[in-house]
Amino acid sequence: MKGRYLENVRKQNPLIQNITNTVTVNDVANVLLASGASPIMADYYEEMEDMVSICQGLNINIGNLNETLIKSMFIAGRKSNELNHPTILDPVGAGASKFRNDIIEELLKEVYFDVIKGNMSEIKAVFMGTSNTTGVDASVDDIVTEENKDEMVAFVKEAAKKTGSIIVATGAIDLISDSEKTYLVKNGREKMTSITGVGCQLSALLAAFLAANPENKLEAAAYSIMMMGVAGELAYEEGDGNIAYRGKIIDCIYNMTDEIIQREGKYEIK
Amino acid sequence: MKGRYLENVRKQNPLIQNITNTVTVNDVANVLLASGASPIMADYYEEMEDMVSICQGLNINIGNLNETLIKSMFIAGRKSNELNHPTILDPVGAGASKFRNDIIEELLKEVYFDVIKGNMSEIKAVFMGTSNTTGVDASVDDIVTEENKDEMVAFVKEAAKKTGSIIVATGAIDLISDSEKTYLVKNGREKMTSITGVGCQLSALLAAFLAANPENKLEAAAYSIMMMGVAGELAYEEGDGNIAYRGKIIDCIYNMTDEIIQREGKYEIK
Amino acid sequence: MKGRYLENVRKQNPLIQNITNTVTVNDVANVLLASGASPIMADYYEEMEDMVSICQGLNINIGNLNETLIKSMFIAGRKSNELNHPTILDPVGAGASKFRNDIIEELLKEVYFDVIKGNMSEIKAVFMGTSNTTGVDASVDDIVTEENKDEMVAFVKEAAKKTGSIIVATGAIDLISDSEKTYLVKNGREKMTSITGVGCQLSALLAAFLAANPENKLEAAAYSIMMMGVAGELAYEEGDGNIAYRGKIIDCIYNMTDEIIQREGKYEIK
Repeated sequence: MKGRYLENVRKQNPLIQNITNTVTVNDVANVLLASGASPIMADYYEEMEDMVSICQGLNINIGNLNETLIKSMFIAGRKSNELNHPTILDPVGAGASKFRNDIIEELLKEVYFDVIKGNMSEIKAVFMGTSNTTGVDASVDDIVTEENKDEMVAFVKEAAKKTGSIIVATGAIDLISDSEKTYLVKNGREKMTSITGVGCQLSALLAAFLAANPENKLEAAAYSIMMMGVAGELAYEEGDGNIAYRGKIIDCIYNMTDEIIQREGKYEIK
Repeated sequence: MKGRYLENVRKQNPLIQNITNTVTVNDVANVLLASGASPIMADYYEEMEDMVSICQGLNINIGNLNETLIKSMFIAGRKSNELNHPTILDPVGAGASKFRNDIIEELLKEVYFDVIKGNMSEIKAVFMGTSNTTGVDASVDDIVTEENKDEMVAFVKEAAKKTGSIIVATGAIDLISDSEKTYLVKNGREKMTSITGVGCQLSALLAAFLAANPENKLEAAAYSIMMMGVAGELAYEEGDGNIAYRGKIIDCIYNMTDEIIQREGKYEIK
Repeated sequence: MKGRYLENVRKQNPLIQNITNTVTVNDVANVLLASGASPIMADYYEEMEDMVSICQGLNINIGNLNETLIKSMFIAGRKSNELNHPTILDPVGAGASKFRNDIIEELLKEVYFDVIKGNMSEIKAVFMGTSNTTGVDASVDDIVTEENKDEMVAFVKEAAKKTGSIIVATGAIDLISDSEKTYLVKNGREKMTSITGVGCQLSALLAAFLAANPENKLEAAAYSIMMMGVAGELAYEEGDGNIAYRGKIIDCIYNMTDEIIQREGKYEIK
């Protein structure tokens, strides 16, 4: 993936509006800063149109839901579509409650998303109505392996076709797909599942990378996913707990260069 | 305390629903992951029954209160009782406002809690109507010492008898008591009061340890409190600030083993 | 600034009520603890009068806005005024939305603030109706330099005169001014803008330092701003990412002494 994707984020410093959850909101803001973007985390509907208007991208993460946040998500999403800004949906916990499934369905009806990103269990819950989700973690049945990858690629391509969105399904192998082309990214470490927020951080990064690289959204998305995987590998130190590891991953992104990503990135295209 | 308490959490990976506060929500999620459990931090009443149903334990922390959260607490609590899941109450800031006291009273009427955990000032506020609480910190008058410990033990036993709950009153000496038996845990360091969230983390761990160890809830509770105290001792390094210390405590739990707890744990039983 | 400002905070341990945002709420609580103060982060209007009454200072940060929080801000502000407690306003994101501007205007009408603190773009938005704010970051046009400092000092003095408040406008040079006297603090590092929350932390520290040093509020304010700048310098290590840097700054405050501040502090008075 020879592109100036990271460089463009660092140069253009896109401002990203995030409606996200209280658990990882701080990590999300800091990873945006680490990548060279800037965060806004306002979440009240009364100011959502103004906020979306001064930003260059929108990240909607449904980790926390309540009346106020839901109202904000719809208003922000519509405004973002109107302005033709990259708009990302992270359907956190899809499949875990009926209410959550209904909100996702409505969001997909009312708002166009450039990217829908979840772990494979969440993506399956969104598009197949399954509920292997155990909270925010992917079920073991949904892990993409060398054996089942063709089937999984076919599934995400189909979802991309149906929605017109880029589908990102994360896991040991991450799939990034539009209806034609799929990137399979093979970076990262299992220990990344023992910290909160890596997924939430990715959604925000997707908004920043698409905002700064509108000419090739699919590859910019794949590149940002690969960057996080590379950071997860380089930040890994035997013996670290999950808090040390979390900090080092974001710090690694702060010091990331395209050269490192080119050297460490592992992917194939289907 | 020779039990496979930690091992059971690591094997069974209990999913814990937490309604907690914005200050420490991230620490709470990460300490659950560090212990081997998994967190859900949803807080909207519309999905509370579904969330509680896919979990194995419930942690209610009243650090932040508002209409939405309060409604969620009652719905979650009742559902958790119905499913016979371990249900924990952390009455943060009990005694600091009339409103808070009223909510606690109502919660205790409507929901059965397997454990009620606070610092000694909060526990006194709940059961004696005192208000030595200065915010979220215990008053110096309420410290359990070698001198007053018999009196304090009698008090928590009485509270346990009255409620049918396990009472956990934290401090320099932590008391973990049902109406018959009290563990006095003597691990930990005073510096743990200079970081936010140790108490909030404990409530979540209590839910995880009781969910994975239903056959001996009292000792599982005492064991998890002792584990945190041991982590606070091992993570301590002269010269560290409170942020470094906080991270190291959770990281220490990530790397904790039963062997370490057996070696370092200090307690007596009354 | 020869005062026992930090010492007084450490001795008196003022309890500070904060209504702040979900992004940096944890950092704010921990920096108060690091400085020797204690935090309450309750945000529900039903208990706001009680909470403000047991505290010695109030910090209102408008980073997140919603109906509940706004109602809490007004009730807390009025009560704090009634009790003559130091009351701080951090007009985060002033200029970014009409709604936000309106709330700030109403707050300034209904509540007296001992300090109004923002970056220079926010302070300009509040007092000149400009909107150079890009989210929460100051615009480059609004940086105080050796060249424009006289003009900037005149502007904050005017704002201080108009409101009767101390005005704090942060940037490469921080201005702390009442209608008569202005401190120009020259500590800190540009990298502090690549982490969330330094500004939010400052507002909370202002509340603590004014609560513990009522006899000289202006210099206590300048001193706390200088302390943060000194921490930002001492905590800086080449190669660190933004997460490591954030932690080290708070840890540096935990270990801060007046001697260090006297040695490292750089300021002039106009």
